[in-house]
Amino acid sequence: MITEPAELPGLAAASSLTLLRQRKPLVHCMTNDVVQAFTANALLAVGAAPAMVIEPREAVQFAAMADALLVNIGTLTAPRAEAMMAAITSANQAGTPWVLDPVAVGALTFRTEFARGILTLKPAAIRANASEILALAGQPALGRGVDSADDSRYALPFARQLAADYGTLVAVTGRVDFITDGDRVWSVTDGDAMMTRVTGTGCALSAVAAAFCALPGDRLQHLAAACRIMARAGRLTARDAAGPGSFAVGFLDRLYGLQEEDIQ
Amino acid sequence: MITEPAELPGLAAASSLTLLRQRKPLVHCMTNDVVQAFTANALLAVGAAPAMVIEPREAVQFAAMADALLVNIGTLTAPRAEAMMAAITSANQAGTPWVLDPVAVGALTFRTEFARGILTLKPAAIRANASEILALAGQPALGRGVDSADDSRYALPFARQLAADYGTLVAVTGRVDFITDGDRVWSVTDGDAMMTRVTGTGCALSAVAAAFCALPGDRLQHLAAACRIMARAGRLTARDAAGPGSFAVGFLDRLYGLQEEDIQ
Amino acid sequence: MITEPAELPGLAAASSLTLLRQRKPLVHCMTNDVVQAFTANALLAVGAAPAMVIEPREAVQFAAMADALLVNIGTLTAPRAEAMMAAITSANQAGTPWVLDPVAVGALTFRTEFARGILTLKPAAIRANASEILALAGQPALGRGVDSADDSRYALPFARQLAADYGTLVAVTGRVDFITDGDRVWSVTDGDAMMTRVTGTGCALSAVAAAFCALPGDRLQHLAAACRIMARAGRLTARDAAGPGSFAVGFLDRLYGLQEEDIQ
Repeated sequence: MITEPAELPGLAAASSLTLLRQRKPLVHCMTNDVVQAFTANALLAVGAAPAMVIEPREAVQFAAMADALLVNIGTLTAPRAEAMMAAITSANQAGTPWVLDPVAVGALTFRTEFARGILTLKPAAIRANASEILALAGQPALGRGVDSADDSRYALPFARQLAADYGTLVAVTGRVDFITDGDRVWSVTDGDAMMTRVTGTGCALSAVAAAFCALPGDRLQHLAAACRIMARAGRLTARDAAGPGSFAVGFLDRLYGLQEEDIQ
Repeated sequence: MITEPAELPGLAAASSLTLLRQRKPLVHCMTNDVVQAFTANALLAVGAAPAMVIEPREAVQFAAMADALLVNIGTLTAPRAEAMMAAITSANQAGTPWVLDPVAVGALTFRTEFARGILTLKPAAIRANASEILALAGQPALGRGVDSADDSRYALPFARQLAADYGTLVAVTGRVDFITDGDRVWSVTDGDAMMTRVTGTGCALSAVAAAFCALPGDRLQHLAAACRIMARAGRLTARDAAGPGSFAVGFLDRLYGLQEEDIQ
Repeated sequence: MITEPAELPGLAAASSLTLLRQRKPLVHCMTNDVVQAFTANALLAVGAAPAMVIEPREAVQFAAMADALLVNIGTLTAPRAEAMMAAITSANQAGTPWVLDPVAVGALTFRTEFARGILTLKPAAIRANASEILALAGQPALGRGVDSADDSRYALPFARQLAADYGTLVAVTGRVDFITDGDRVWSVTDGDAMMTRVTGTGCALSAVAAAFCALPGDRLQHLAAACRIMARAGRLTARDAAGPGSFAVGFLDRLYGLQEEDIQ
């Protein structure tokens, strides 16, 4: 029996945000070269703490100290892949939840094999667009690059299957986001197309998702809350933005100032 | 017989921009560590699609799939140089046009030798300041670092010679930009000195130039259009900018919102 | 006999800034992956010139040509550590002053050993928060990550000792900054908590400090001036900033437009 998607209540998202701001989780980010600053600034704005640590021996040490680990393969290299493997192993030993962002998986062989390999290492969650979910699930995909050509609704059954097969949570994001543990599904209908004109909004969401995965309580709800908070901040910001430059600036301001009543 | 420089007509630039927005070329960026986000955001704002791929085996694969390849040597390392060589070879086999931005060539031996080496691998275009053009041409240069100490007009004959010798196009940019195939020369007199106070405006222009080189039709005109569009966006933005912080933000907004009538 | 901390006079800071803008020092930045663009933009805004050069053989060459060298270990890797060692050696031979930013030293073994090792290579100055100063001094520290859990006043005696032991200057920054050569101490009471919500403000200060260390005259005063100028720009910007996004933008505008009378 499969549960139908239900819209995440604003109250639940607001409560997750309050908890995040109390706990200020420290997120160990192993992410791509393009989005480092935006990711760190998004984490700081929402109320978490970022730290980028990539030397293998340090990544091993830090993954055991941090509250969550982000693994984003956007500019994967062979040395970075080794450092990520070491960090994931350390995170798993220490009980640090880790989140996978399988950027542009499918089109490129090296990262696709790497992403499929680490899927088996018990990520707490996967945050991806529809194309990437299809690729992880071994389905034929349409897209090239990072923009999702497929719709998240089409990808949802595969997201559920991935979640069930690997004992993880999956957030498949797009015009509508679906967040599932394989059984339950939350949906988030918010956001704005302007988010696709700023590099790193998806990557920043994955980092924020990692921060929310560090919270005690219902992790599926927290993960959906991360999606809702970022989408809501995006929609509220887009109203007044003259273009993608001022959108990116306003988005960080909005994340920082977001109140419970803005989310509900 | 040598053609005198002629100002690129606004109508031509506008028509190239319209074509770019229809085609949305995917640009494989191999660029320096400083300008990754600004480059990606400039490409998104103007209507192209960026993807940064640097692992050698992925760069080989992706250079054959992308619509254009950018090679920017600003923070060149030995491993990155190898990956760039592999990507250029793959791009040439696949017919993907590639653009060289020889950042700070001349003063530093490693990158100078690398840049001179890849010059022979048939770049579609070179985008550089006057000092860099002089260095590529084996002329004594005055500058150190990335700012152009020589005037683009002084460098123009050497730019023409480079274009003729290597069968490429050269855009030498500065207070006035010249864009040449060795015979014809377009000039662009626009822009604003504030662009020199924001890191990455030249690097972003090279990425945008790569996107324009992917368009069908007169490549020299498209390359000059890239220069004109970026310069015009810069001049329009500088009017209202309080400083380099708001200039960088407004520049992306302006690129995104640029209309045909703004360019003419 | 130990001098009590005295607030740096605004007139002294203003005079250092004027000198910096005349000299436009070129700063060779070897810094972390997260703050590259913000660091370059802060240097450009204040009136200096940045260049990021990291390939070992180029770093050796460039450290001898630049006016100052910045060594920031935020995302240290083994290859980067080797390149930094080579650059420091070259800087010392050429008489180029170099500044150490020991990001997150203490918690992570690899960078801690590296930072302690290069301490003996005669940095012109160290810019760090209180936790990092305690770690360099071999004291037990409270913090994890980059935020300072200890107060700069508590760290001041250790900063003085470090300065005396290694013949260097130390700027320990926080709610109050102290700048010491082991004997004299300047203090700077300015700045704003919003600076802790934007990634890279501390790293950018270290880069600006390197630029000021390139000036002729009283280096302790110049280093304190760097702290005061950044803190003052931060406080003036925070008045009008809606959040960390607009703060980062406004901060660059403010640095660029800062007048002598703003500092006094």
